Amino acid sequence: MNYAMIIRTLGFMLIFEAGFMAPSALVAAIYREKSVVYLLISMAVCAVAGLVMKQVSRPKHHRIYAREGAVICAMVWFLYSIFGALPFRLSGYIPNMIDAVFETASGFTTTGASVVADIEAFPHWLLFWRSFTHWVGGMGILVFVMAIVPLASGGSTMYLMKAESPGPSVKKMVPKTSQTASLLYKMYIVLTLIQLGILILARMPVFDAFCITFGTAGTGGFSILNTGCATYTALQQVIITVFMILFGTNFSVFYLIMTGRIKEVPKISEAVTYYGIIAAAIVLITVNIHGDYTNIGLAIKDAAFQVGSIITTTGYATCDFNLWPAFSKWILILLMFCGACAGSTGGGIKVSRIQVVVKAILKELDSAIHPNDVRKISYDGKPLDHAVLRGINVFVTAYFLVFGMSVLLISVDNFGLETNFSAVAATLNNIGPGLGDVGPTSTYVSYGPFSMCVLIFDMIAGRLEILPVLVLLNPHTWKEGHVLRRARNRKETRDPEDSLMSGML
Amino acid sequence: MNYAMIIRTLGFMLIFEAGFMAPSALVAAIYREKSVVYLLISMAVCAVAGLVMKQVSRPKHHRIYAREGAVICAMVWFLYSIFGALPFRLSGYIPNMIDAVFETASGFTTTGASVVADIEAFPHWLLFWRSFTHWVGGMGILVFVMAIVPLASGGSTMYLMKAESPGPSVKKMVPKTSQTASLLYKMYIVLTLIQLGILILARMPVFDAFCITFGTAGTGGFSILNTGCATYTALQQVIITVFMILFGTNFSVFYLIMTGRIKEVPKISEAVTYYGIIAAAIVLITVNIHGDYTNIGLAIKDAAFQVGSIITTTGYATCDFNLWPAFSKWILILLMFCGACAGSTGGGIKVSRIQVVVKAILKELDSAIHPNDVRKISYDGKPLDHAVLRGINVFVTAYFLVFGMSVLLISVDNFGLETNFSAVAATLNNIGPGLGDVGPTSTYVSYGPFSMCVLIFDMIAGRLEILPVLVLLNPHTWKEGHVLRRARNRKETRDPEDSLMSGML
Repeated sequence: MNYAMIIRTLGFMLIFEAGFMAPSALVAAIYREKSVVYLLISMAVCAVAGLVMKQVSRPKHHRIYAREGAVICAMVWFLYSIFGALPFRLSGYIPNMIDAVFETASGFTTTGASVVADIEAFPHWLLFWRSFTHWVGGMGILVFVMAIVPLASGGSTMYLMKAESPGPSVKKMVPKTSQTASLLYKMYIVLTLIQLGILILARMPVFDAFCITFGTAGTGGFSILNTGCATYTALQQVIITVFMILFGTNFSVFYLIMTGRIKEVPKISEAVTYYGIIAAAIVLITVNIHGDYTNIGLAIKDAAFQVGSIITTTGYATCDFNLWPAFSKWILILLMFCGACAGSTGGGIKVSRIQVVVKAILKELDSAIHPNDVRKISYDGKPLDHAVLRGINVFVTAYFLVFGMSVLLISVDNFGLETNFSAVAATLNNIGPGLGDVGPTSTYVSYGPFSMCVLIFDMIAGRLEILPVLVLLNPHTWKEGHVLRRARNRKETRDPEDSLMSGML
Repeated sequence: MNYAMIIRTLGFMLIFEAGFMAPSALVAAIYREKSVVYLLISMAVCAVAGLVMKQVSRPKHHRIYAREGAVICAMVWFLYSIFGALPFRLSGYIPNMIDAVFETASGFTTTGASVVADIEAFPHWLLFWRSFTHWVGGMGILVFVMAIVPLASGGSTMYLMKAESPGPSVKKMVPKTSQTASLLYKMYIVLTLIQLGILILARMPVFDAFCITFGTAGTGGFSILNTGCATYTALQQVIITVFMILFGTNFSVFYLIMTGRIKEVPKISEAVTYYGIIAAAIVLITVNIHGDYTNIGLAIKDAAFQVGSIITTTGYATCDFNLWPAFSKWILILLMFCGACAGSTGGGIKVSRIQVVVKAILKELDSAIHPNDVRKISYDGKPLDHAVLRGINVFVTAYFLVFGMSVLLISVDNFGLETNFSAVAATLNNIGPGLGDVGPTSTYVSYGPFSMCVLIFDMIAGRLEILPVLVLLNPHTWKEGHVLRRARNRKETRDPEDSLMSGML
């Protein structure tokens, strides 16, 4: 294992984190908030720590293989959560370090689960930093860096994008990975600006518009008001609903629209299914809850907002769905698991994985009545690669195993089943609010430090889609002998595809 | 589709059901219970209906292919549940027909979920019938019939055994299927008799010993006392614990012991893992609950009983685990999903499937750090067949889909999440008692007729391991054109392996 190179890369990324904090300093300048000194200290700590790591490490060679890449991927997210927590901890607005890390991990992973009961007490710069983490994490930290740092090693960086981008497989829209990364970020920035503009036109205060847009774009869900999004006007809520659903859409759709190939959009079956599920859920919930509303329009608005918020794993709320009937609540839980599209900023299992899994079941049912019939599953008109199907199956089963073990671990705090179950569902799927004691009007602060660590792990595992984080727990990853023996036995070829980011630093 | 042959076979099976009711009539004779007249009427109805179906159907040919076999398999279980409900309904002890079908399906599928609050009011013959359904369903209705009716078509009956026998794949212990079936039943009968004898030696009343043994052997869990198994002495509870765990063991272990190959037992990794899980769960729960007990021995006894009862999906209870701390409760829920060994009478996902799934995840983690390393998963020393792995993956995902949809459907009755979630977990895994309003001291009677039908479906789907029941819902199964076109296109060979039970009737 090229430890020196791992430390060097992580140091490089930490320097970037100091840079990510800069816009918040600008906000502090505008609002003349003196507590910004804690932000500046945090920036200095990040920059110095990063520089030291970069200088101290003296890699013998700059080559990074799949193993180092996997480790870097997962560790960057833990490191960003820990250092990004400094402004919360140092300023004293979140006095407990683990809670502060929870809040930051919740930000970067676009979960939106909070430990803060009175968020309105926070200064503007801290609120801005909190929401900005959503925007950075939404499209991916490493993807962002790759989009602006030119990479010499070419196609090999695909591996890092794969680990960070939601969904079973990343389609390269354009041949070069760095181009795909910057294309994704361009679409992301344009959509963000459009939402920002429309919200300001709809008379939302500019600061609120910024923070809410960051949360929508990254499908994060941190609110800056104690009442969540309930305070905003109906029009503003509808705008947020529309953009939440847009940011949960497979970005290939926007690419097709951007390049004038609108006719090809219906061929992206994931997007079609995604919109179908949303429509069905809104109808079912509206029918179930309209009795509690004086006006069917309001019921539809609330149903649509909550459905859009949950399926995209954003986690904004305009009403306390904890009080909804069991039927509507369970629909929301199913949507939590379903999640948004692959290639979007949303979390969860992803619509395309659900589609493939259902196709595999239907195929197995057909072969139960026609044992001699051997067909391959096809997806979007192409036969599905065996490795992709295997990857999806492993993901889904690993997902449920992590889920079951997490609920077990946090149940040491002895909350009720609904609370524990939905706390894990809401963090592993990067949603934010759960049900029961962690419902949309409560926070996660009552959980003990051990459970908080489990939930931090779940947020990052959910954001990176389980396997990259489990790699850190696999003893084989750290056994040097394991690799050497293998390499000797198999004459492991030093495939350039394996060499990650070698020209990066 | 050879409908005539399906009806004929189902009729044949109904006549057998009348036969299964006969022992209960004997019990009534011993206790001189006049209400047995309702049992005799039920027997007559089964026999007449069966005979009429057998005579009315005039199959053009006696050949049955995979499609007919799949349909017969699933329909037998629904038919047995409906006709087996007659004694409950006609005698008026369960006044509602859907509730009576629920109770019977719960019996045959060895679930043990009940709608009866005061079970001690039942006459002996009815209690006996209720418990006897566990014993019949435990090893499989069709397997039982195959074990005693000589089948001419040979290896093709393997298909029916596969559909009814728990686990990812049925190993033939001996070359002929009918011999394997009768061998399984011989071991089943011997173990049953041993437990019966020991319980009677331990001074359990003879009638109780019969009913409790049926429930243990089939891993069913119907109790004949309102207090469940709490009334029995500690010794009797320990005996039940041991036999529950034995009946959840892969029967290959008993076959090896029977044939003197005891040394080979540790090679059956499923059994080893199964006993390991049981030991770990007992230790963890004992540590968690011992504070509530005056005596550590009692805590161990209760922990072991409940663990053995839940992992084997029996569902007997000696204490109200609804009152246990969240940690112990979630361990029980994980055990509900885990289930017992393949090739046992227990339900759930099965230990061997969990093993294979974990192996697949570990392999994927290794290949994340060594992309060039291509290995096959091995199980019990042999490389795992691709089709078996695919079948396991499809099973697990179909399982969770059915789970999610079932909770949604029964949530129309607006019970809490814990109740709905555990009701589906307890029926789909064939356990019986859940948590909350369907906990070990409650019944399922509060659910409405629609939810009851969903739960009946879940019990049978769980017993047949999902796919055979989903086959009934697949439109392709019923489309004649679908099959003809296929057959023409592919010149479907009339493989003798496909021809099921052709020589049976």
